[in-house]
Amino acid sequence: MRIDLNCDMGESFGRYTLGDDAAMLDVVTSANIACGLHAGDPLVMQATVALAARKGVAIGAHPGYPDLQGFGRRAMALTPAEIEATVLYQIGALAGFTRAAGAPLVHVKPHGALYNVAARDQAVAEALVRAVAAFDPTLIVVTLPNSALLYAARAAGLRVAREGFADRAYREDGSLVPRSEPGAVIHDLALTTARAVRMVTQGEVEAITGKIVPLHVDTLCIHGDTPDAVAIAAALRTALEDKGVVITPLE
Amino acid sequence: MRIDLNCDMGESFGRYTLGDDAAMLDVVTSANIACGLHAGDPLVMQATVALAARKGVAIGAHPGYPDLQGFGRRAMALTPAEIEATVLYQIGALAGFTRAAGAPLVHVKPHGALYNVAARDQAVAEALVRAVAAFDPTLIVVTLPNSALLYAARAAGLRVAREGFADRAYREDGSLVPRSEPGAVIHDLALTTARAVRMVTQGEVEAITGKIVPLHVDTLCIHGDTPDAVAIAAALRTALEDKGVVITPLE
Amino acid sequence: MRIDLNCDMGESFGRYTLGDDAAMLDVVTSANIACGLHAGDPLVMQATVALAARKGVAIGAHPGYPDLQGFGRRAMALTPAEIEATVLYQIGALAGFTRAAGAPLVHVKPHGALYNVAARDQAVAEALVRAVAAFDPTLIVVTLPNSALLYAARAAGLRVAREGFADRAYREDGSLVPRSEPGAVIHDLALTTARAVRMVTQGEVEAITGKIVPLHVDTLCIHGDTPDAVAIAAALRTALEDKGVVITPLE
Amino acid sequence: MRIDLNCDMGESFGRYTLGDDAAMLDVVTSANIACGLHAGDPLVMQATVALAARKGVAIGAHPGYPDLQGFGRRAMALTPAEIEATVLYQIGALAGFTRAAGAPLVHVKPHGALYNVAARDQAVAEALVRAVAAFDPTLIVVTLPNSALLYAARAAGLRVAREGFADRAYREDGSLVPRSEPGAVIHDLALTTARAVRMVTQGEVEAITGKIVPLHVDTLCIHGDTPDAVAIAAALRTALEDKGVVITPLE
Repeated sequence: MRIDLNCDMGESFGRYTLGDDAAMLDVVTSANIACGLHAGDPLVMQATVALAARKGVAIGAHPGYPDLQGFGRRAMALTPAEIEATVLYQIGALAGFTRAAGAPLVHVKPHGALYNVAARDQAVAEALVRAVAAFDPTLIVVTLPNSALLYAARAAGLRVAREGFADRAYREDGSLVPRSEPGAVIHDLALTTARAVRMVTQGEVEAITGKIVPLHVDTLCIHGDTPDAVAIAAALRTALEDKGVVITPLE
Repeated sequence: MRIDLNCDMGESFGRYTLGDDAAMLDVVTSANIACGLHAGDPLVMQATVALAARKGVAIGAHPGYPDLQGFGRRAMALTPAEIEATVLYQIGALAGFTRAAGAPLVHVKPHGALYNVAARDQAVAEALVRAVAAFDPTLIVVTLPNSALLYAARAAGLRVAREGFADRAYREDGSLVPRSEPGAVIHDLALTTARAVRMVTQGEVEAITGKIVPLHVDTLCIHGDTPDAVAIAAALRTALEDKGVVITPLE
Repeated sequence: MRIDLNCDMGESFGRYTLGDDAAMLDVVTSANIACGLHAGDPLVMQATVALAARKGVAIGAHPGYPDLQGFGRRAMALTPAEIEATVLYQIGALAGFTRAAGAPLVHVKPHGALYNVAARDQAVAEALVRAVAAFDPTLIVVTLPNSALLYAARAAGLRVAREGFADRAYREDGSLVPRSEPGAVIHDLALTTARAVRMVTQGEVEAITGKIVPLHVDTLCIHGDTPDAVAIAAALRTALEDKGVVITPLE
Repeated sequence: MRIDLNCDMGESFGRYTLGDDAAMLDVVTSANIACGLHAGDPLVMQATVALAARKGVAIGAHPGYPDLQGFGRRAMALTPAEIEATVLYQIGALAGFTRAAGAPLVHVKPHGALYNVAARDQAVAEALVRAVAAFDPTLIVVTLPNSALLYAARAAGLRVAREGFADRAYREDGSLVPRSEPGAVIHDLALTTARAVRMVTQGEVEAITGKIVPLHVDTLCIHGDTPDAVAIAAALRTALEDKGVVITPLE
């Protein structure tokens, strides 16, 4: 039994600090680093890449919509061609820093609204996949199980990692309950931890209806931008290790 | 006798078009492609890289200050650390597109105010050089002869290309007469062409004082953003070829 | 018989020039001036306002989505609160220049994707109206006949101006044929002119089906960003005046 | 004896929060609200203006260089015409929100690098003054005593407020010791408070040399972006009130 723990990182910008990346890098095994269009700036990217490399955490690009004000959380009507070029731009920019740091770029996980749109919109998913494949076909695409992006990535011969969310409610079909609906987010740490253990060790989750449904994931999303984020992440990691789960990067 | 002809390219942005890159790529041998911070956007970068690659023109990164509104022509008080990270970001972003196009990235030429500041400010020059060297120590740095950037690049073991301006007046010490001074820009095409030929074939230029001074250059800057730019560039190229000069990329 | 002719203006940005505003201001009676978020910058806004004021052309704010790269033509998922604040910001910014120029701010016409979304989405329309009403309830809102924005503006007690497009095909219900459909844009100048005259003098338009349908408009949209824009606009104005139509600003 | 306490506000941006504006508005009498180019966004501006208005705190525009990444702290080589238009843009944008809130706009205080450059560069100072005067000649300009901006504002007939910094070291000529020099910032709260009281009640300050020099100020700058900012501000206010100083807005 093994799982990767991934966390969005490098989301500070100029005068603005977000998250405690240094502490979180002691807990997680994969860092999704913002690429400057929805968050992050060149200094932040350089420092975050260097820190992740030093701590042996796998580095991934975390491209988003070009919308700093909206933090990449507002869907934008980009054409597939714009998606492809915008994602390729961001992967390249981050890869400049990994190359300078002598660290490999391992994965790509889209951010925020782009993550959501790519999970359901085939044209966007395929555009994103074209960008990844054109840059480096050995990169791993991190996305939801059963998503448009998962299928597009597999169809293009890319490696994929299925992502789970221990603190989010699921429907019976394995999709996430939207945040706009009641009960979508689970705030109880013990419950979150128990769900993480169940996902990883048994490949299943209790849907919001109460029914137990299968859910196979390769990586768990660890949130980094809440006040207790590091403590929660550490508790989750410990709980998984106590059950014999090996916490290890994607491969 | 040989010379490279370089031109800034990919300076369109979204709805805004600047220059006739397709036509200019038939004339020049090196393209300095904007990287999205002072001009250019992901679609423009992708298209310009693809076009340059198809036409066999050498591709270089053309990083500038992060100031789209000022087109990178307004000096900004960035720290050396900010310069380094900002330039590395831009080289990486452009390199994503060259990698996807299967074309090599050959050189780096800073843009506008960054070009000027790096030519005279040692700390900025060294920061810029750190970015280039960290990304790829085989890249060629294009800059003014006798500039701070030239010496910093050489000190770091990088290859350099000395750039000449056939349509700009020079002082006796080989430096450019600032644009703010009278006579700084030469608008006569015949004179510009004669100066280009003299620079390339004899390694000298007539300074604004009338004195002939030595000036050794590896590449000539071709301006691309004036209405007659392509015709002027073609005339200049023809004049050089008529004198037996081989127009060929940097190496 | 009277009609206003309006044109988007001030869409240049930094090094980038778009349209021939000076010439167009001799033809139209209302200028919709971009406010810096999708196009325009402070210098451009200041100059365009000054020019319009000098020529006696009515000045309106032309707010758009905060997306310079997409020229405000890509819909963005802003909340109503974000729409309201973003529009108010833009009206205020432009009003700073009209105030400095001693010219009144007369109208507000949303730009591009915001124009389209506000025409069909009631929450967006109401948010936009809140911004206008909060700034100045005497401002005129320019929008499509029968649009969500028209009804929201009227419900808030604002004045409205219904806009017609002589070079666009209409459906029988008076709505525009989307640009993505064949025949949506009319490129023949004589036909465009005839349609303009018919709209203004008879209050009707020939729908794409061939049926004549009523269409009452207070202002015609004149496009300013094509090569022949000024000549087309002048021809249209002359044709209208030849039929006895008075070309006059909204009131 | 009376003094105004002013604090920079509304410097949050999108996902990023900076400072505790609500708490600080209970302590200070003037709020300098960022205008979206170096910090702040439309939602933040709207909320901050509304909050300041509700608490009866005087509202001022806080324009800066268009450099969000650098938080307006990096000098930029803008021409005077660019300064004028950029400042006018920002005043107008903020004034849209004060107008909507039914609150007066009282003062203008430039931010960061623009504050420093305008204090010493006459052309920049005069450009800034042109923007203020063009928008509203009754606005108060907040700046350093003896600065270029102070003289330019007075020459244009504008009202001015001289600003003091209780936690900054002064030279004997009344100018600030640059932050880059040792001892420039005073971290001891008791000392800061004593200096504030001395400035306000006696019109003098102990220079870094130990000599007591005259310093007449109308407003004290309260920093809002440090962890203890509100507590420090409250202590300072209490200390001043204990000495009989009336804390009251500029007029």
